Amino acid sequence: MPRLFCVALVLASGLLLGLASGASAQTPLDVDPYREAASRIIEAALADSAAYDRAAYMGDTFGHRFSGSQSLEDAIDWILDEMRADGLESVRGQPVMVPAWIRGQESVLMTHPRVEPLAMLGLGGSVGTTAAGVEAEVLVVGSFDELTARASEAEGKIVVYNVPFTSYGRTVAYRTQGAIAAAKVGAVASLVRSVGPVSLSTPHTGTMSYEDGVPRIPHAAITVEAAAMLQRMADRGEAPRLRVTMGATTAPDRLSRNVIGEIRGRESPQEVVVIGGHIDSWDVGQGMHDDGGGCVVAWEAVRLLHDLGLRPRRTIRVVLWTNEENGLRGATTYADSVGASGAANTQLAIESDGGVFEPIGFGVTGSSGVFETLKPIEALLAPVLAQEASQPIGIVSGGGGADIGPLMRQGVPGVGHRTANERYFWYHHTAADTVDKLDAGHVQRNVAAMAILAYVAAEMPQRLPQGE
Amino acid sequence: MPRLFCVALVLASGLLLGLASGASAQTPLDVDPYREAASRIIEAALADSAAYDRAAYMGDTFGHRFSGSQSLEDAIDWILDEMRADGLESVRGQPVMVPAWIRGQESVLMTHPRVEPLAMLGLGGSVGTTAAGVEAEVLVVGSFDELTARASEAEGKIVVYNVPFTSYGRTVAYRTQGAIAAAKVGAVASLVRSVGPVSLSTPHTGTMSYEDGVPRIPHAAITVEAAAMLQRMADRGEAPRLRVTMGATTAPDRLSRNVIGEIRGRESPQEVVVIGGHIDSWDVGQGMHDDGGGCVVAWEAVRLLHDLGLRPRRTIRVVLWTNEENGLRGATTYADSVGASGAANTQLAIESDGGVFEPIGFGVTGSSGVFETLKPIEALLAPVLAQEASQPIGIVSGGGGADIGPLMRQGVPGVGHRTANERYFWYHHTAADTVDKLDAGHVQRNVAAMAILAYVAAEMPQRLPQGE
Repeated sequence: MPRLFCVALVLASGLLLGLASGASAQTPLDVDPYREAASRIIEAALADSAAYDRAAYMGDTFGHRFSGSQSLEDAIDWILDEMRADGLESVRGQPVMVPAWIRGQESVLMTHPRVEPLAMLGLGGSVGTTAAGVEAEVLVVGSFDELTARASEAEGKIVVYNVPFTSYGRTVAYRTQGAIAAAKVGAVASLVRSVGPVSLSTPHTGTMSYEDGVPRIPHAAITVEAAAMLQRMADRGEAPRLRVTMGATTAPDRLSRNVIGEIRGRESPQEVVVIGGHIDSWDVGQGMHDDGGGCVVAWEAVRLLHDLGLRPRRTIRVVLWTNEENGLRGATTYADSVGASGAANTQLAIESDGGVFEPIGFGVTGSSGVFETLKPIEALLAPVLAQEASQPIGIVSGGGGADIGPLMRQGVPGVGHRTANERYFWYHHTAADTVDKLDAGHVQRNVAAMAILAYVAAEMPQRLPQGE
Repeated sequence: MPRLFCVALVLASGLLLGLASGASAQTPLDVDPYREAASRIIEAALADSAAYDRAAYMGDTFGHRFSGSQSLEDAIDWILDEMRADGLESVRGQPVMVPAWIRGQESVLMTHPRVEPLAMLGLGGSVGTTAAGVEAEVLVVGSFDELTARASEAEGKIVVYNVPFTSYGRTVAYRTQGAIAAAKVGAVASLVRSVGPVSLSTPHTGTMSYEDGVPRIPHAAITVEAAAMLQRMADRGEAPRLRVTMGATTAPDRLSRNVIGEIRGRESPQEVVVIGGHIDSWDVGQGMHDDGGGCVVAWEAVRLLHDLGLRPRRTIRVVLWTNEENGLRGATTYADSVGASGAANTQLAIESDGGVFEPIGFGVTGSSGVFETLKPIEALLAPVLAQEASQPIGIVSGGGGADIGPLMRQGVPGVGHRTANERYFWYHHTAADTVDKLDAGHVQRNVAAMAILAYVAAEMPQRLPQGE
């Protein structure tokens, strides 16, 4: 179906459903009917450390959960078994073909002005090198503009992007687009200063892109420390040289699965509140803040509602998408599988993919009225939200997530789970995104917040309006 | 000479000198005569980034400076050449035989409940293993007390000390003494959770001890992340197993040098203000906060005084001690070389070995009156000290340094350089103690502070009293 027509249809059905509910889109929800349920949810969530324990067990037992890896599929098998044991309904693995990039042995060796191995991580999707590697003098630049200005110096060199972290969105462009820009000016490889605000000699991996018609050159991340050193050496005219060796290969796509489980709605089971995170991670660390913790929080929120016997009007469906990191195949497969009618029947899509630190609320994106309707729910969340934070506490306007993006683009209201995540990019895509970075108390409070929002959205009488 | 007699002699001579100066020990120094010199020092120190540039060049060009390594001796050769070019007097390398511990190839592999390599660093002085390594189940303990209580479980195991960082002094005991305690209860190896408050999968090395009559077992540091994971696995009854492989060896002692340079005193050249840091580092990173930065700050302080033509009454001697980290051989050699008379003639010993962050002042240890005498100098330092800090700003009572310890124990008043070093133990003994952790402005302000203190101590009419 052409996208524009599809969106129009969805918008129309959303408007009709909104009108059919009899409630004005602008009417703030009366949350009094949900106060008792919210209290029970909070009490149950804070009674033990079940969610934290599951996240820790998953991280420790399976390690990373990279697309194409056996450890991801083992973790998925375990979750499916556990969800069935939890008593969730319609528990299933939804098949998804995912990319299989394999890192292999890799290194960056400084060969001049002295010999020293530099900590590094190849970037997902990069081509490899021969076993001898690629050795060349470096050209250190601080921006794409500088690369353009110095294009004549790049031929045969290894481009090093020494770009300090400002915001993720701005800085990550050098990771995703760096190899293309470097290859266009004749570089033989490119390296990016790791995308993070704090480094303890910490390489950050992540995905990267090539462009048709542009040579595919090896692309990897080095540490902030190494990039800064190469910059100083270049500034002193010492012409540093590096040898980049990467065994990276891309195998044929492999079978993975989205993990799905439900509490079937008691009145309108075809209407669905989707809640989830992405079960895949990068191939280092344990992927706890990104996004194992988010998955477990969403899953445990639904398990808790089930245990409390809270079966709402609509279906609550936990979806743990696969392959968010380097393909988004899980998200597109899920959206394709429900189709336009499924999107039209999706009351709300909630994603947790910004870390599981102290909960501060949710961010809402939707057509006029969605935010105003949901805003009063923050009164129910207050007992588990932070008392102080550097970001606004409560339900704010604006938010979402990569995995619910395909639904949101069809008009489904989207919600991003928000936590006090100032340190998120310290750990992001590194060996340090591990269980110890989770706080058990925070995890349990996030479970309560997610459960309350999902329950109220599934129980409230009115449909939320769809459309942009 | 028996130590007690020696101390008594030194105390007596100190008292005599104090009396001879005609000033009461309790009289605060009138700093007005030094205001103009202090202003000139500050202006010159802040005029460029010479000190930072030297520190950066040293770190980048030579890398780490571990006792017994060629890189340490190369760095020392460079400094001696530069000091001579600076015009310092009596520039010399003082021979010191230092230990030569060689790390070799090393690894810790978790073999159960899943296979994963764990980031690690062997500890300086540890024995190695066979090429096959030592493989055993782990016994995770949180304290020496717990190890004692569970001694019957330790036989044949690898003891893992999972001790959270509280203070360095308290936590480091598990690094220095852990192998002894583990061996006493029959362990085949021991691992310590790295001694640091923040980890991004960051192993910290450092020195460790054996005890005569106790078997020497391999001893290494793993990351906070890995120690916490092993703890969780043990708590879940999963009986994790590790294979520790270390190629560590200890070679015969090798020749190193203390680096010494002077501004000869114009009136009492035999009286000396000693100022310095330790030029050696661990064998990872660039040893910038520990203690390359401290060395350069002391050296540049003296170079600056020379350039300004400020030749004080007494000699100012910069000493960059070798082998502080794993032997303190440089400090003992220096103290032995000057002897009791040299100690008695040492007006003040100033050490920078706590990092080169934003300057906040100095800490003074000495007999009654030393602190009171020096306290007013903080008025001269004020323009370069931090305006706000979590620690007291100015000249405080209490301080010193490992390398000036042998002098202080002979009654020499000692001063420790203080900076806002909350992050010192983030980087300490890791690959992340690198040039980028220095701030050029902070370095220059520290040079000014060190130069002012050394100058005033060398120029003031009175001798500082000695003794405890």
